[in-house]
Amino acid sequence: MIVVMRSDATEADINAIQERLAEYHLKGHLSSGEERTIIGVVGASIPPTLREELEFFTGVAQTVRVSSPYKLVSREFHPQDTVVEICGNKIGGNHPCIVIAGPCSVESEEQIMATAHAVREAGATMLRGGAFKPRSSPYAFRGLGEHGLQLLAKAREETGLPIVTEVMTPTDVEMVAYYADILQIGARNMQNYQLLEEVGRTNKAVLLKRGLSGTIEEWLLSAEYIIAQGNPNVILCERGIRTFETATRNTMDLNAVALVKRRSHLPVIADPSHATGKWYLVPPLSLASLAAGADGIIIEVHPDPDRARSDGGQSLNFENFAALMPRLRAIAGVLDRGIASEGCTGCGCHRSQGTRDA
Amino acid sequence: MIVVMRSDATEADINAIQERLAEYHLKGHLSSGEERTIIGVVGASIPPTLREELEFFTGVAQTVRVSSPYKLVSREFHPQDTVVEICGNKIGGNHPCIVIAGPCSVESEEQIMATAHAVREAGATMLRGGAFKPRSSPYAFRGLGEHGLQLLAKAREETGLPIVTEVMTPTDVEMVAYYADILQIGARNMQNYQLLEEVGRTNKAVLLKRGLSGTIEEWLLSAEYIIAQGNPNVILCERGIRTFETATRNTMDLNAVALVKRRSHLPVIADPSHATGKWYLVPPLSLASLAAGADGIIIEVHPDPDRARSDGGQSLNFENFAALMPRLRAIAGVLDRGIASEGCTGCGCHRSQGTRDA
Amino acid sequence: MIVVMRSDATEADINAIQERLAEYHLKGHLSSGEERTIIGVVGASIPPTLREELEFFTGVAQTVRVSSPYKLVSREFHPQDTVVEICGNKIGGNHPCIVIAGPCSVESEEQIMATAHAVREAGATMLRGGAFKPRSSPYAFRGLGEHGLQLLAKAREETGLPIVTEVMTPTDVEMVAYYADILQIGARNMQNYQLLEEVGRTNKAVLLKRGLSGTIEEWLLSAEYIIAQGNPNVILCERGIRTFETATRNTMDLNAVALVKRRSHLPVIADPSHATGKWYLVPPLSLASLAAGADGIIIEVHPDPDRARSDGGQSLNFENFAALMPRLRAIAGVLDRGIASEGCTGCGCHRSQGTRDA
Amino acid sequence: MIVVMRSDATEADINAIQERLAEYHLKGHLSSGEERTIIGVVGASIPPTLREELEFFTGVAQTVRVSSPYKLVSREFHPQDTVVEICGNKIGGNHPCIVIAGPCSVESEEQIMATAHAVREAGATMLRGGAFKPRSSPYAFRGLGEHGLQLLAKAREETGLPIVTEVMTPTDVEMVAYYADILQIGARNMQNYQLLEEVGRTNKAVLLKRGLSGTIEEWLLSAEYIIAQGNPNVILCERGIRTFETATRNTMDLNAVALVKRRSHLPVIADPSHATGKWYLVPPLSLASLAAGADGIIIEVHPDPDRARSDGGQSLNFENFAALMPRLRAIAGVLDRGIASEGCTGCGCHRSQGTRDA
Repeated sequence: MIVVMRSDATEADINAIQERLAEYHLKGHLSSGEERTIIGVVGASIPPTLREELEFFTGVAQTVRVSSPYKLVSREFHPQDTVVEICGNKIGGNHPCIVIAGPCSVESEEQIMATAHAVREAGATMLRGGAFKPRSSPYAFRGLGEHGLQLLAKAREETGLPIVTEVMTPTDVEMVAYYADILQIGARNMQNYQLLEEVGRTNKAVLLKRGLSGTIEEWLLSAEYIIAQGNPNVILCERGIRTFETATRNTMDLNAVALVKRRSHLPVIADPSHATGKWYLVPPLSLASLAAGADGIIIEVHPDPDRARSDGGQSLNFENFAALMPRLRAIAGVLDRGIASEGCTGCGCHRSQGTRDA
Repeated sequence: MIVVMRSDATEADINAIQERLAEYHLKGHLSSGEERTIIGVVGASIPPTLREELEFFTGVAQTVRVSSPYKLVSREFHPQDTVVEICGNKIGGNHPCIVIAGPCSVESEEQIMATAHAVREAGATMLRGGAFKPRSSPYAFRGLGEHGLQLLAKAREETGLPIVTEVMTPTDVEMVAYYADILQIGARNMQNYQLLEEVGRTNKAVLLKRGLSGTIEEWLLSAEYIIAQGNPNVILCERGIRTFETATRNTMDLNAVALVKRRSHLPVIADPSHATGKWYLVPPLSLASLAAGADGIIIEVHPDPDRARSDGGQSLNFENFAALMPRLRAIAGVLDRGIASEGCTGCGCHRSQGTRDA
Repeated sequence: MIVVMRSDATEADINAIQERLAEYHLKGHLSSGEERTIIGVVGASIPPTLREELEFFTGVAQTVRVSSPYKLVSREFHPQDTVVEICGNKIGGNHPCIVIAGPCSVESEEQIMATAHAVREAGATMLRGGAFKPRSSPYAFRGLGEHGLQLLAKAREETGLPIVTEVMTPTDVEMVAYYADILQIGARNMQNYQLLEEVGRTNKAVLLKRGLSGTIEEWLLSAEYIIAQGNPNVILCERGIRTFETATRNTMDLNAVALVKRRSHLPVIADPSHATGKWYLVPPLSLASLAAGADGIIIEVHPDPDRARSDGGQSLNFENFAALMPRLRAIAGVLDRGIASEGCTGCGCHRSQGTRDA
Repeated sequence: MIVVMRSDATEADINAIQERLAEYHLKGHLSSGEERTIIGVVGASIPPTLREELEFFTGVAQTVRVSSPYKLVSREFHPQDTVVEICGNKIGGNHPCIVIAGPCSVESEEQIMATAHAVREAGATMLRGGAFKPRSSPYAFRGLGEHGLQLLAKAREETGLPIVTEVMTPTDVEMVAYYADILQIGARNMQNYQLLEEVGRTNKAVLLKRGLSGTIEEWLLSAEYIIAQGNPNVILCERGIRTFETATRNTMDLNAVALVKRRSHLPVIADPSHATGKWYLVPPLSLASLAAGADGIIIEVHPDPDRARSDGGQSLNFENFAALMPRLRAIAGVLDRGIASEGCTGCGCHRSQGTRDA
């Protein structure tokens, strides 16, 4: 921590800082110039609120944090890439990129089965589909609930594709974890701390979406919440942030993908469907995501986007998805990574799973 | 809903729209000009996803929503002001403005009692204090939990001040509602829909803070979630939004206060402590909030802000709070409202409450 | 400046920093802790790019600026309020608040004369009106040019109201300064540096609007540009910033008004017309502006807002303006300031001015 | 234009709208539903302010614009790609992508010559370099002026690389156009309309950067300003927008690149140096820009970034630039475009040019 004094700060002001530091057994190192003095305070034991407190002492111009507020997710303290393994597919490091595809919502058995087979055939790595949907309006369709999860499990059984699906509230974590391979935390829940801790207590991988107004630092701190509970298998997902621009649904922040790969050891994927909100922007931004260094993408695919019960406008149909895959492979090839398209490689996840009480 | 066709749309494109509308027993009214055709579709039974769907039909330039997505909170359908009554204090309409004051977190009995007495003496209407604190870092202080609620109840018993406190997760609603007079939904939870529905099933008033990146429309939709469960006693609270400006913690949006008073019948208060993040900006922005039409303010007061366990930098000490109150009264006087400073007027809330199992 | 080293920085990394500092005859003070070392560098002679340069040295985690980048506008170095005097009216300090009123654009002699008389009668301090209008579309009305300025001068002659009008390009400064009492720099030109320097070379007061995405620091730096040319008479004007919220034209940032009054000695006024974009929000936000500490407001008034050639939707008609004035006086009274409503007190500005060649 | 009436609008309210429309010889088509009526108004002759005016009529809920505000830049009215030709290099369409490289500022003959040769050798298409630099602080280095332009011309003469350089004020356009091949309009000047019109009257290509808070629509309207003066050779440049995220200098908006390619026929390039602000993010975001569909990139390269007089932190050194080029070629190859690296193909621009009076 650094305390920058005002140019008119007195010796008494500086002494008051030193006395407050001494209460915590800390000591400030003074650097004095013509214009002002700065006080450096180093040590692992600085309490988190002390900096904010000193900010408002007399004679203080500003205080500056020096340590990063996260540790477990930081590449500075953990230089090697975290590699998350799902049914034999490795995510992160220099492993092949993954493509997670499927509908926004699971709507019916017919819909999810058709989609699972279509994306499997085109070469997707995993299947996505929402059974619990957060919707801004209380009057919108909110998903099929546990029945949707059962349909996803059935689709996995038939196709071998591991399943990614969202969990919205702590009391649902156990149920969703029973069916899913990756638990998705949606953008609106990036700072739902009870939920983060609950998924941190499972042994399932977690896909943590960035919040609409989540800074990169806050996003990493939310990952820290999960890992601090003992679950290291966190995959970050950039899905667009809210800005002044309204011509697209959100503003995709690919700077964040590249920066987080540098600041953290966690895998990072991108979601061009939510980040753009328009199906015709999904292909170029999917290619751009891989080129920017993402470890994969997650995109929405629907048999008949015009009749989807949610997010139809940003979903690819089967034909457009099939046309995109070779282009993704070409980009991933140039980057020496390729696309992982094995589906489950034998971990047993595609067993018949039945319902929870079965 | 309005469908705007591209200038190169064909008759077949327009027919395709009409056929899709007919599936829902709707009919489009055509207006054709030199440059393009627009199709008006009116009717209460338009399904919510139809507009988004049509947006991507061939020949369509854009679609426009006509109806507001909320009904219960809209002044258009409910012109009279909602007045929420807490222990005899009326909030909203042209009733006197309220001042809710107290620490960010309940830290100890001594701290909360001292604060309750000080703000009561200076003329506050209610007491605030957090027992459950959402914090970006997993390593920060997160409140005393139920013990904090008991201390708040004790402070109410001694001073007669009704209590406002945050609830963060659905499973805590019953417990928090046992102690509190107003349930606060924090900014990070504005779109935690399970939580909104859970407080909507209680009979306690709800203080709904606007999210950091919540639009006014989304904020009202979140209120709609609560009211749709049967609880009409929602008080909105503007607490600053996230923008590019970093010199203040957030950007206080007083436009929103004035606009929401016009668009909705719900009471609206303002939180200059979080909206500014700096104690010395709290007094001017408190005055500005009332002048903009807020039905009250909620501000942080602490016996020793320099040693607060959270948000010290934005808390007023007792002296500064006492100095602010007469200025608030003067502004509220000019607006013909005054400040409500009765505390509980005899509803019995300040009975000895004990713990839940008592 | 402070250089924060990474936890894995080597002694060689630190020496490289010291050597680079030595090239500028600077010396770093080291503070070493368990986790990392920080290097404090103090001195008025630090070149502005050095910090950015060191940021990218090996072993550096981040660098932090300590000195504020502006001097002339800073209250730290110039504690007394700047008071700008226009035709005998004093702006800033604790002098009465000013109300500048008038149409967005000067449209005709009849329009500007009627408005000047109406706002004078209701108690306005000065007259605004645009002769040169920046418009996003090349097809929109862009003002009457010099003829508009002559009409403003005529209105001043008749009413004694000093004139505020915008200048958009360096080559027009001389012409506009010939007619106007205050030169307005519009939001889009906050960082048009040639224009800032040109008005800095005149002896007219300058009203500097904040840019749509201008930070408070950048805004003050733009004021510094003007003052650095020798013209100290700068009045800042908050007019709303661009955020994600689209329900209002802009987001009025009254935090900025209060903060700038603390950081700088310059007068600050507010523009609720542009900040809200809706005439019915102008009255509450005008009151809020004064309550937040603004030294005045500038608002749009038009004889027939429905037929205005620009910004009609945010203009008050005469009746609404006349109804607002007593409410402004009441708020300003509570703040012990009042409203300045003398118009020109005899500086001779309301002489017949004729055209420039006369 | 569409006028949406409130649910409580009366027949008189609707008639008042119709009467106002009739003044402009327009007629509204009514669509009435259970809840409300909407009025469609079509016709090319709707005056631009009429919509805003009607928004505030009694009984009106909102008005909606139907026509796009720009014509000349719109792909709807001009489906074929505009291809800008510079010294034989074609930009736009499916022509090879361009790479413009060079220092932020021209600092000395040695610096610009070394850079020109280095980027030429690595395969750049054109040379960038600033002679006039907009800087937030009046105390920062602002470029060498005309001498810088002469050095650029000399570098072109030696290497054959066409030159891109910024012009900041209308009175400098003639001078800059004398030396440059492409006139750059910087982000801060996106809405400096006099400047846009002045470059619109030249026959030089214009590189129009998007403003920090410029919407896509405003950006296209600014291009419309230039083209409306008779100069069709506009190249758009995305360079990052200002958002709440502060971990990178700006937020690169690649959604905008892909969307503008669809909405407009103009070429679009991207500037990852300014969009990220960190040299180590430039390579991944350069690759991502091409993958998203950009027609080229413009990046900063400096012989010794640590000692650059501006923007050193975001500049590549020669080695990093040379390492990036083959990767760009690989991505462009996958997209079937390649990189244009001919430099001038014989238009004579690399003649000895001398000074203007020569």
